[in-house]
Amino acid sequence: MNQKAQQSEKTAISPRRDQDFPEWYQSVVREADLAENSDVRGCMVIKPWGYGIWESIQHRLNRMFKDTGHKNAYFPLFIPLSYLAKEAEHVEGFAKECAVVTHHRLEAAPGGGLRPAPSAALVEPLVVRPTSETIIGASFAKWVKSYRDLPILINQWANVVRWEMRPRIFLRTAEFLWQEGHTAHETETEAREETARMLEVYAEFSRDYLAVPVFCGAKTDGERFPGAVETLCVEALVQDRKAIQAGTSHFLGQNFARSSGIQFLSRENKEEHAWTTSWGVSTRLVGTLIMMHADDDGMVVPPRVAPTHVVILPVTPKPETRDAVIAAARELAAQIHAQSFNGAPIEVEVDARDLPGGTKSWEWIKKGVPVRLELGPRDLEKGTVALCRRDQSPKEKIFPELASVPGTLPGLLQEIQDGLYQRALALRDQHTVRIDSEKDFYAFFTPQNPTKPEIHGGFALAHCAPTRELEERLKADLKVTIRCIPRDLSPEAGTCIFTGQPSTQRLIFAKSY
Amino acid sequence: MNQKAQQSEKTAISPRRDQDFPEWYQSVVREADLAENSDVRGCMVIKPWGYGIWESIQHRLNRMFKDTGHKNAYFPLFIPLSYLAKEAEHVEGFAKECAVVTHHRLEAAPGGGLRPAPSAALVEPLVVRPTSETIIGASFAKWVKSYRDLPILINQWANVVRWEMRPRIFLRTAEFLWQEGHTAHETETEAREETARMLEVYAEFSRDYLAVPVFCGAKTDGERFPGAVETLCVEALVQDRKAIQAGTSHFLGQNFARSSGIQFLSRENKEEHAWTTSWGVSTRLVGTLIMMHADDDGMVVPPRVAPTHVVILPVTPKPETRDAVIAAARELAAQIHAQSFNGAPIEVEVDARDLPGGTKSWEWIKKGVPVRLELGPRDLEKGTVALCRRDQSPKEKIFPELASVPGTLPGLLQEIQDGLYQRALALRDQHTVRIDSEKDFYAFFTPQNPTKPEIHGGFALAHCAPTRELEERLKADLKVTIRCIPRDLSPEAGTCIFTGQPSTQRLIFAKSY
Repeated sequence: MNQKAQQSEKTAISPRRDQDFPEWYQSVVREADLAENSDVRGCMVIKPWGYGIWESIQHRLNRMFKDTGHKNAYFPLFIPLSYLAKEAEHVEGFAKECAVVTHHRLEAAPGGGLRPAPSAALVEPLVVRPTSETIIGASFAKWVKSYRDLPILINQWANVVRWEMRPRIFLRTAEFLWQEGHTAHETETEAREETARMLEVYAEFSRDYLAVPVFCGAKTDGERFPGAVETLCVEALVQDRKAIQAGTSHFLGQNFARSSGIQFLSRENKEEHAWTTSWGVSTRLVGTLIMMHADDDGMVVPPRVAPTHVVILPVTPKPETRDAVIAAARELAAQIHAQSFNGAPIEVEVDARDLPGGTKSWEWIKKGVPVRLELGPRDLEKGTVALCRRDQSPKEKIFPELASVPGTLPGLLQEIQDGLYQRALALRDQHTVRIDSEKDFYAFFTPQNPTKPEIHGGFALAHCAPTRELEERLKADLKVTIRCIPRDLSPEAGTCIFTGQPSTQRLIFAKSY
Repeated sequence: MNQKAQQSEKTAISPRRDQDFPEWYQSVVREADLAENSDVRGCMVIKPWGYGIWESIQHRLNRMFKDTGHKNAYFPLFIPLSYLAKEAEHVEGFAKECAVVTHHRLEAAPGGGLRPAPSAALVEPLVVRPTSETIIGASFAKWVKSYRDLPILINQWANVVRWEMRPRIFLRTAEFLWQEGHTAHETETEAREETARMLEVYAEFSRDYLAVPVFCGAKTDGERFPGAVETLCVEALVQDRKAIQAGTSHFLGQNFARSSGIQFLSRENKEEHAWTTSWGVSTRLVGTLIMMHADDDGMVVPPRVAPTHVVILPVTPKPETRDAVIAAARELAAQIHAQSFNGAPIEVEVDARDLPGGTKSWEWIKKGVPVRLELGPRDLEKGTVALCRRDQSPKEKIFPELASVPGTLPGLLQEIQDGLYQRALALRDQHTVRIDSEKDFYAFFTPQNPTKPEIHGGFALAHCAPTRELEERLKADLKVTIRCIPRDLSPEAGTCIFTGQPSTQRLIFAKSY
């Protein structure tokens, strides 16, 4: 390969996706200035660009929760140890790896420095919430007396902590940000409807905002949330063909109501336990966005969740034209901000920093801002501007008339949004495969070069009569799990490809995050 | 007193303010459904109505922070013990009473239940952030290399924990929600300007949104934030004539930059330490609002921070007119929501619950919703509606034409907002007193009936040349502190009323929360 060809293949992110997907992911997080690891093991610092994406996610979901009748509230960070002990099945599932507060004061240590004061040991240790079913349940138990007090439809935006042995930024961190919906209902039917309604909210949000196509369905017994009667989920396929759960909604039956004592006097004047649900998404969605849309030049943010939609880069080669260019850039920014996209003003930034144009341009490419506009003295003379789209090659530019640009941006942003979704959908469809034998199944999920696992596999749709033993075997052999019993595939009689048992529908299998 | 007169004096909140202010406060919190204590000592559950007020506060401040160039980010909940040990002066001040995480796993205890797993003791304990200077400083140190990287203007919305021995809901809780701004600058001048700018943001927000008049000024040495060079504050006077700090902004000089290593290469190519600031407000503001505006019938929420501006109470005495009344109420709600107040649609709720009208009406009075509209079959016939303002007596009603109501609401809400501010200002002015002798000073701050301390005192403006000793004495004798060295009082030569030393201006003294 000659030098020129090599150079043309140089990308802003190294390694490329096809070279080392996990390293590429870390590199995108760093180069796009999304987040960084802190000195506290497993805890991340979410930098302004990454946090801005999370705020966009929050903003829209918050509106969708409100439109479905929910109100926000806030519950304590700390959970008494006894609450978790009470909820035995719950604890069995995942609450063991958590941060435990044992002291409430520091004091000078004899050898210098500080230490937890022995005299300030807590009688009952406190657990930093890994999820809030138990502490919210304790409040619901106080709030609910009669069927008239139901339903209770609450959401909380909060930080939670689950000690992670193998942390990975955004995907698996000790502390993460999330929302957790918690509702209590009079009847099983209402609670099941709520569970399905919130799954639909997540599916719609993934599709229309994250530009992430998802399969909706239920988890098998083996993958269900501890304590839940049914766990619904939305599952996406990202660029290394692994699955990632982009939202989950649990029908908890009366299990949590029983352990928390959420009881009410029914219309028939009888004491009954409420039916509860919980549902949530987390900052993991930012990781999902990266793995779904980013490329070898960095992050690609779908316009509907972009903190900034358009960046204007003033090109100022000569001091004598600098002021005019900056002024024109700010005027253009004001015109663009007056346009509406996705129900709010288009967010635009003028990057007037005193840095080389190429440096600035590549920073914004790596951050994944949807549209870049370059404006220099010659553009001003000609009345044009250079427009670059993040969903196209960094070299592609068009030169529309300056005056026409603001008016075309709402349509252009939606076009980029739709294009990202179509690309993601094509990827998923390409790698969603019907598989009808165990041999083909094992081949599908086996890397071709076992010494360096490359991108392989995808969503396998296969007939299966799942049992815990079978699920354990697939996990051990292939690291493959049943992602869901899909809701939208038509029932179809068949036989389990592993056991020969009768099966009424295909399940979705994948390796996953 | 005859029975009728007694009855006419009955209030929704008991005890009344003049009977027992602290108990009245707790009663308002409970009856207005703002928050409740949890089983975790000192930690509160913020209920939807209280959290909605906090969200309004967040929403507006967030906009003001953005307009002054700040971006949101998120830093870890946990701070390594060594970070706090490094910042010795900081720790001396208030970081000792904090929650300390010592274990990262639970296990079954030998005698049943759960316990922190001895095998999972952390090598270095983690402190739940009481404030984030140290952990944010560690990030800034990585982000800043050259003067070109400055200023850094960051804000964080987060929960923080300070173990409180005498917790009081909203005012002093172990966990509370707040925002903390953290900025780093190239020069002292810029950092001092930032400190003053953010104080101005708080003062404007207090005045225009919380309807709380404030004095702006600097703290004395004795009251300054540990590690700060200068602490600015906004101070309000609430109904029991005590002071409460409604926002604080610190100029930290190079102190924190030195301990965190925030260094940059200057324009002169020299390594220098950055100049930093921090500033914050918390859910304490909800407590401030209660003490400022609530009355003997419950909460009074200023319209500009009300989660709901208008509630419509359908009056449905007969089943046969019920549907028509509910339909008219919803139609009215839609027309009201189409109106804009404070830059957003008027938030309106139709309370169609199947409860007695009086019960519902009093619930909303106690919650402090600014405007209540009662709509019944006879109103529909006459084309009128009954309108009640929370800033007036519960018995006062007017009967405007139904069709005219939506259009008049934006003006009416602003009128209520302005009225609350004027009332608060009059209270403050009435109890802000120039005092020119130590004897008068002691008398001003001494309750008349020492066995049952009643509402007394206020803001005392007195000449003073403060020393730590004097401040300690006033605290010990009277529980009075210097609230601030006021910014807006003209300098005026005088002598310290306590020591006879020359003084250049009056300081503001008060008892405080």
